Amino acid sequence: MATLIETDRADDERLDDFRDLTTADRRPDRPGGRGLVIAEGTVVVRRLLHSPYPVRALLGVPKRIAELRDDLAGLAVPAYVTSAETMSEVVGFHLNRGVLAVADRAPSPSLPDVLSRARVLAVLEGVNDHENLGSLFRNAAALGVDGVLLGAGCADPLYRRSVRVSMGHVLRVPFALASRWPAELAEVRHHGFHVAALTPRPGAVALRDVRDAGHERLALLVGSEGHGLSDAALAAADSAVRIPMSEGVDSLNVATAAAVAFYEVTR
Amino acid sequence: MATLIETDRADDERLDDFRDLTTADRRPDRPGGRGLVIAEGTVVVRRLLHSPYPVRALLGVPKRIAELRDDLAGLAVPAYVTSAETMSEVVGFHLNRGVLAVADRAPSPSLPDVLSRARVLAVLEGVNDHENLGSLFRNAAALGVDGVLLGAGCADPLYRRSVRVSMGHVLRVPFALASRWPAELAEVRHHGFHVAALTPRPGAVALRDVRDAGHERLALLVGSEGHGLSDAALAAADSAVRIPMSEGVDSLNVATAAAVAFYEVTR
Repeated sequence: MATLIETDRADDERLDDFRDLTTADRRPDRPGGRGLVIAEGTVVVRRLLHSPYPVRALLGVPKRIAELRDDLAGLAVPAYVTSAETMSEVVGFHLNRGVLAVADRAPSPSLPDVLSRARVLAVLEGVNDHENLGSLFRNAAALGVDGVLLGAGCADPLYRRSVRVSMGHVLRVPFALASRWPAELAEVRHHGFHVAALTPRPGAVALRDVRDAGHERLALLVGSEGHGLSDAALAAADSAVRIPMSEGVDSLNVATAAAVAFYEVTR
Repeated sequence: MATLIETDRADDERLDDFRDLTTADRRPDRPGGRGLVIAEGTVVVRRLLHSPYPVRALLGVPKRIAELRDDLAGLAVPAYVTSAETMSEVVGFHLNRGVLAVADRAPSPSLPDVLSRARVLAVLEGVNDHENLGSLFRNAAALGVDGVLLGAGCADPLYRRSVRVSMGHVLRVPFALASRWPAELAEVRHHGFHVAALTPRPGAVALRDVRDAGHERLALLVGSEGHGLSDAALAAADSAVRIPMSEGVDSLNVATAAAVAFYEVTR
């Protein structure tokens, strides 16, 4: 069981991991200057507790910590229990979800690892907005996408805001990071995936056609809303697919477009 | 052509409609205490200029106003031209889109009006978040939904934030407001619509089945993420449909779920 520790001192240095959350993603004292993994609210904290990330501590009001009792049973970490007021003072703003957990980062799985376990893969390029990235993971989890490959120009999925918007699903859906982009696309194809690039370009076939083709393994390549996919990424794909859209409408949000595509190819 | 008027005085009272935008949705001096319709950025301003809402004025930096020259050709309204600094001072924050337009509100079309022109209708209940509501309109426009009925508990689609998130599509997709909710659902059915309620409840049929049924006119009833649809709304629907989702995943965001449903039933 986690060790419950009551405290009512906002300057308690044991709470330093939770201090001033609005800047918690910049930690010059940590490897790479990156923040810890931070989960907010019972649902997301629960996902963190059951994730591969090594939990360091929890901080919460009594009611929320009590709700997590079963999840904390096998866990040897401190759970600091305090008032909502002290919590606000520590984190720097009013946090209405009442509970936080922090964990160390952990190495991402390798690409072959992610590929070997996936039937449907999402491959992202240039998704540099933390909220869109978080939404993409939430949608991937809901609609049965098995893994994510983050290509060039993507935001950090473990930023606090991404974790929150994803409802904690960035902690569950395995993702690999590309380091030789777009060379990884060849590796994806080599593993037997059909790589379909989602693009509004003329000449792209309708999404439904790619589903009807019945590929055994499918990777959906998704670019940023603003610039779309790079020519190099498009060139490395097997096909170009589009979501049929009304005239005069620019596009869907990238996470929404991906959700529609995930839905279509996973049914 | 709109009348171009240069000004560099932030206290110019002709700019009062644009003042302090963060509170612009509360206008005790206007009918119902509601704000004007405000469009931000070239794309959304353009949609406002071509909408039924009577434009009152524009405010922008020279470059942005010049971009709108063709759209302003037939319009007898003042277009105030100023510097980015003066604009920031007027609106109360830095506005990086460089152009604004304001319009009067206009009465919503009647429900029979909206129904008579629609094949696919979105019916919303309890969608009280302005961003979700804006996203819903953007998705409706992109995916070919012809109109929206706003049931009980919905936010105001003409709030500044809704307009912005919708990319201006709240100004294009016709919407009617329910005043006797859920009695309007009977009227929708009376007009020949099959009303399908989107719900994660067990017993709901898969979305694809409702598409395959080939209803000539279809109304998709969508509730809020938190509480879902009311029992009264569910009871008034012809069928209950669900998006098949992975185990252990709560749900999709309401606008995302609606996008998936819109996609499925409009193809």
